[in-house]
Amino acid sequence: MAEPIPIIGGTGALGYGLAVRWAQAGEHVVIGSRQAERAAEAADRVRAAAPDAEVEGLQNAEAAGRGPIVFLTVPFRAQSETLTNLRDALQPGQILVDCTVPTAAAFGGKASRTIGVWQGSAAQQAEEMAPEGVTVISALHTVSAPALAGGEAVEEDVLICGDRKTDKARVAELVERIDGLRAVNAGALETARIVETLTPLLIAINARYKSRAGIRITGLPDDHWG
Amino acid sequence: MAEPIPIIGGTGALGYGLAVRWAQAGEHVVIGSRQAERAAEAADRVRAAAPDAEVEGLQNAEAAGRGPIVFLTVPFRAQSETLTNLRDALQPGQILVDCTVPTAAAFGGKASRTIGVWQGSAAQQAEEMAPEGVTVISALHTVSAPALAGGEAVEEDVLICGDRKTDKARVAELVERIDGLRAVNAGALETARIVETLTPLLIAINARYKSRAGIRITGLPDDHWG
Repeated sequence: MAEPIPIIGGTGALGYGLAVRWAQAGEHVVIGSRQAERAAEAADRVRAAAPDAEVEGLQNAEAAGRGPIVFLTVPFRAQSETLTNLRDALQPGQILVDCTVPTAAAFGGKASRTIGVWQGSAAQQAEEMAPEGVTVISALHTVSAPALAGGEAVEEDVLICGDRKTDKARVAELVERIDGLRAVNAGALETARIVETLTPLLIAINARYKSRAGIRITGLPDDHWG
Repeated sequence: MAEPIPIIGGTGALGYGLAVRWAQAGEHVVIGSRQAERAAEAADRVRAAAPDAEVEGLQNAEAAGRGPIVFLTVPFRAQSETLTNLRDALQPGQILVDCTVPTAAAFGGKASRTIGVWQGSAAQQAEEMAPEGVTVISALHTVSAPALAGGEAVEEDVLICGDRKTDKARVAELVERIDGLRAVNAGALETARIVETLTPLLIAINARYKSRAGIRITGLPDDHWG
């Protein structure tokens, strides 16, 4: 039986969209929020969209302990504080999937502009802050949150960065539980500094096309995790 | 009748690949090189691949004057010197399409690592250096040069950045003369700093998949230059 999927910041747009899709795919989802009541309320909404699903809503720190692969979907400006609060909750052996996007929106600027993170990327900042033994993987920066939450058909790739292929493959498996998503091995964790900038790029494209654009990598072999 | 397409640095991998495809599509191509003999030799090779095509090989400065939309496909480390040499050759009203990629390969490092350009991107450096009245557009960073030159089928997008949509649309038209390429309006010229990093990203992906990967933007409307 599959283990629960904790989503830290699961009341936000991306976290909620992922929760809905995983719940609809039969996964057991645990929504985390700073406030337990907001988490419970979001869990109710997910259950409405996926009536047969097992969905819990808990405070972030409690949620983080509920499964081996933890998704961090808070806004970038809350990443550092959230990881500080999770320091005792995350355990060696867990995988932390950082989905945060460092854009100028973090301090009131445009979401189509990147900001420079000293460590190189938000993912590398997460790695610096995560407890010893927790592996950080970077993923899910290019999937439209409203498209996920709205039940729209998606047909696109999720670029996964990290330093160990086996860990990336475990995250890939969860990503591909969502209909229409294909996981692509996009390189070492340091490559997250490129992938994280795809969000502002897509925001710039969406502004022109009134679209909910995503990314597809062309020319890959079929057996792409082989 | 269509005007010639000057390709500065057309003896290099990307420039040569573009020359072959445009020649095969019936366009008149002008290959530029620092040395006229090397340009002539590349032009011979293009003619061998596209026997009916009109192809010239000229020194860069001479080539640059032969058509309204000039493609700059030199390695990034040669961009600055090349633009200095073209200062008298480029004329107001021309469009300069910068295809250079600022990676650490410019000083012997890895091509999968970006470098920071003070102006924000190679394209913005080109804009700073281009003569008054010459518009700079950024494009063609994600198309595999060997795939183009080798005649492989491609089915992917070319992201085009620039500050005026009408200029981008003119470049888009030339890009789409190549079978399988779709041009996407990726935003203002400043967005080139993101698009230019897609080359190192694809290099990282190709290293893992032994592929010649490209990019496709999903979720766009059909009439994408309307």
